[in-house]
Amino acid sequence: MDLKQKMLAEFIGTLWLVLGGCGSAVLAAAFPEVGIGLVGVSFAFGLTVLTMAYAIGHVSGCHLNPAVSFGLWAGGRFEAKELLPYIIAQVSGAIVGAGILFLIASGQEGFSLASGFASNGFGEHSPGGYDITAVIICEIVMTMFFLLIILGATDERAPQGFAPIAIGLGLTLIHLISIPVSNTSVNPARSTGPAIFVGDWAVSQLWLFWVAPIVGAIAAGIIYRSFTPKAQ
Amino acid sequence: MDLKQKMLAEFIGTLWLVLGGCGSAVLAAAFPEVGIGLVGVSFAFGLTVLTMAYAIGHVSGCHLNPAVSFGLWAGGRFEAKELLPYIIAQVSGAIVGAGILFLIASGQEGFSLASGFASNGFGEHSPGGYDITAVIICEIVMTMFFLLIILGATDERAPQGFAPIAIGLGLTLIHLISIPVSNTSVNPARSTGPAIFVGDWAVSQLWLFWVAPIVGAIAAGIIYRSFTPKAQ
Amino acid sequence: MDLKQKMLAEFIGTLWLVLGGCGSAVLAAAFPEVGIGLVGVSFAFGLTVLTMAYAIGHVSGCHLNPAVSFGLWAGGRFEAKELLPYIIAQVSGAIVGAGILFLIASGQEGFSLASGFASNGFGEHSPGGYDITAVIICEIVMTMFFLLIILGATDERAPQGFAPIAIGLGLTLIHLISIPVSNTSVNPARSTGPAIFVGDWAVSQLWLFWVAPIVGAIAAGIIYRSFTPKAQ
Amino acid sequence: MDLKQKMLAEFIGTLWLVLGGCGSAVLAAAFPEVGIGLVGVSFAFGLTVLTMAYAIGHVSGCHLNPAVSFGLWAGGRFEAKELLPYIIAQVSGAIVGAGILFLIASGQEGFSLASGFASNGFGEHSPGGYDITAVIICEIVMTMFFLLIILGATDERAPQGFAPIAIGLGLTLIHLISIPVSNTSVNPARSTGPAIFVGDWAVSQLWLFWVAPIVGAIAAGIIYRSFTPKAQ
Repeated sequence: MDLKQKMLAEFIGTLWLVLGGCGSAVLAAAFPEVGIGLVGVSFAFGLTVLTMAYAIGHVSGCHLNPAVSFGLWAGGRFEAKELLPYIIAQVSGAIVGAGILFLIASGQEGFSLASGFASNGFGEHSPGGYDITAVIICEIVMTMFFLLIILGATDERAPQGFAPIAIGLGLTLIHLISIPVSNTSVNPARSTGPAIFVGDWAVSQLWLFWVAPIVGAIAAGIIYRSFTPKAQ
Repeated sequence: MDLKQKMLAEFIGTLWLVLGGCGSAVLAAAFPEVGIGLVGVSFAFGLTVLTMAYAIGHVSGCHLNPAVSFGLWAGGRFEAKELLPYIIAQVSGAIVGAGILFLIASGQEGFSLASGFASNGFGEHSPGGYDITAVIICEIVMTMFFLLIILGATDERAPQGFAPIAIGLGLTLIHLISIPVSNTSVNPARSTGPAIFVGDWAVSQLWLFWVAPIVGAIAAGIIYRSFTPKAQ
Repeated sequence: MDLKQKMLAEFIGTLWLVLGGCGSAVLAAAFPEVGIGLVGVSFAFGLTVLTMAYAIGHVSGCHLNPAVSFGLWAGGRFEAKELLPYIIAQVSGAIVGAGILFLIASGQEGFSLASGFASNGFGEHSPGGYDITAVIICEIVMTMFFLLIILGATDERAPQGFAPIAIGLGLTLIHLISIPVSNTSVNPARSTGPAIFVGDWAVSQLWLFWVAPIVGAIAAGIIYRSFTPKAQ
Repeated sequence: MDLKQKMLAEFIGTLWLVLGGCGSAVLAAAFPEVGIGLVGVSFAFGLTVLTMAYAIGHVSGCHLNPAVSFGLWAGGRFEAKELLPYIIAQVSGAIVGAGILFLIASGQEGFSLASGFASNGFGEHSPGGYDITAVIICEIVMTMFFLLIILGATDERAPQGFAPIAIGLGLTLIHLISIPVSNTSVNPARSTGPAIFVGDWAVSQLWLFWVAPIVGAIAAGIIYRSFTPKAQ
């Protein structure tokens, strides 16, 4: 695989993550009577990753997330020189995914970005009103466990072929826990996509959803090294 | 496998897709107090494909969907000469599936086709009132990603045996996102089954649910060729 | 495996199917505010089979259901001489499972068998009031597809190891569709367990939930023979 | 793997089980309008185990539960000398997991431990008001089946690589059944974590959630020996 193919795969995959995950939240979560609720949104986010990991895992490794790329680098599984191209592809995909969602969502009368467009936030912009400290802890810890799952499930000693299930449903789990706290990011690209459209508070709070996930991911990379037969 | 066996498998499988997917929507989605809602309908559609892919994948490849057959053809995985027989089997199965559902649903007092019978529609017949442009974009993009998942997960470089999970849960994901927009087709046969019974608007809007999914599927077939080691 | 071990496995597995499936319905479906609803019950039934298929599939084949035993026999996969011992073990397990559930459920003040104890029924005892014709069609067709999934997913040409996922989630799917119609049986043993405790209408309607599932299962056994390379 | 690595893995995994499972209950179950309900909590608990089993199964076997360690010992799969270190690591992880959850939950105005913090209980502290007898029976039987699933799915005759799916979704199933009865323990460490923070009744009722799960687990270890080709 050359880098161009990998970047195309990361672009497509992250587009799908934002379109599918945020799309389910914006279009279907609160649909009258039969809406999918946070359970449905949690499965949607996880299934974007599960499906793409089987579809493009053999092309790019299917990171779809700058924090994942950083965490795999910290764990010794990914080369530093590919970090920037991967992140550029991921963020571009996220923005285009949010754009397509905007086009679809605008087709309903009464749609407004003011309802948040699935952006992440803290304080008054946290779905449950959680303060900044809770949101920082939550995003660091959730991303740390996300990377532990990724590093463990893709370890050559783990059963082969199952990693997309563990990782995708791991992201579902993380959403089942933490949507009320931060609307769940654990992924700076996913946070950037909708924030570009909402602007205002979503952009001014965006720094947290870059810093905390990457900190958590790097911590996981370091911790997981303890489990390798010979510490590297 | 001879073509007759393949057509029988496609007939049975598409019958199940419509009976199970549309059946869950018609019979159980809005059941008082404990109804399955759109989450349940999304899982039902996806599980019809997951179950049939394990049950008859080794017979016909388990397309169950004219758009899938077109997309696999565009991706170089399916022969043009089998397109027509597959589509005939799929549409026949969809209509019989809708017929069995009609027989069961009629066994409840007060049942009426006027509630839509799980047909797909746009404008005033979109569940959430989405306009035709939103529905076209949504159906093209959703089907494109559905085919990317299918083409990727069945790639010989992907883990073997897992494709039915990725594809089935991919269809679940697509429903979690887009039922409010178009009632989710991504499958001309699935749209045709109930429309035959509802007639009227469901038939007059049916063209969109043939055109948009097939356009999206062919686009995916072309895009996925970029990921093959040697472009064909 | 000797027959005694197989019968113990079928007893344990069917006990679990009834305790888990009917248990989720009786104890948790309508829990105030956060009840699991029919989606939760559907997953519970399916997961009893998924978990037991991995746990005891290598002991008895994990039928847990007289209709499954008949269907596998009709499909040429199971010997007639083991039908009766398997069914005895299954029905015994189902009754004991219902008994344990009764013990647990009785520990809540106000519990009453009059709410149905997850029995299957038609007419006024169908959850949605479906008439006997609808219930017969539904149970025949649902069991037929259940057996097609089982026969297909355990075919030696299907991916190995995945059958419990296809079969378990297939049962989930069947419940997502048909709980409102018949409370979903597709399994004479599952129907017998609670009916013994409820008596009255549940026992007098029980015949349907023996006849229809077995008819559907045998039909599937015959149909699936069309897909074998050399018709037997 | 040396014992220190195994203990670190058990610590991390049990921390995740409590943070994720109890976290989903405390933070998201009753979120207004779109809360995840008991279905979401059931999936969350199960997915903590599924994800960790793929992530650290190759390090420690991923017990995350003193009852599991006892049950595997009774089934002849785990050495008695590792029981105590495993349990120490599990309980420590559970307490730290509850602590992190406390930190996050406290970030919402109005949070109070008085709502139970996902502790297990009987009588007036059972979610559905079930009496102590029902809770004892339920915890013994549920843990017994949990261990039967674990022992069966990890049997060398079962399909390889799938055990984490069977075991994780088995725990989901157990929660779908029994949250209303005991808030579902089947895991003394999971019960201990939140109880330490709630104190009072949660601590005084804690004995039951150590005794019943371990009794059920040991029973399963003995029963499963019947299925081994040569009884050991």
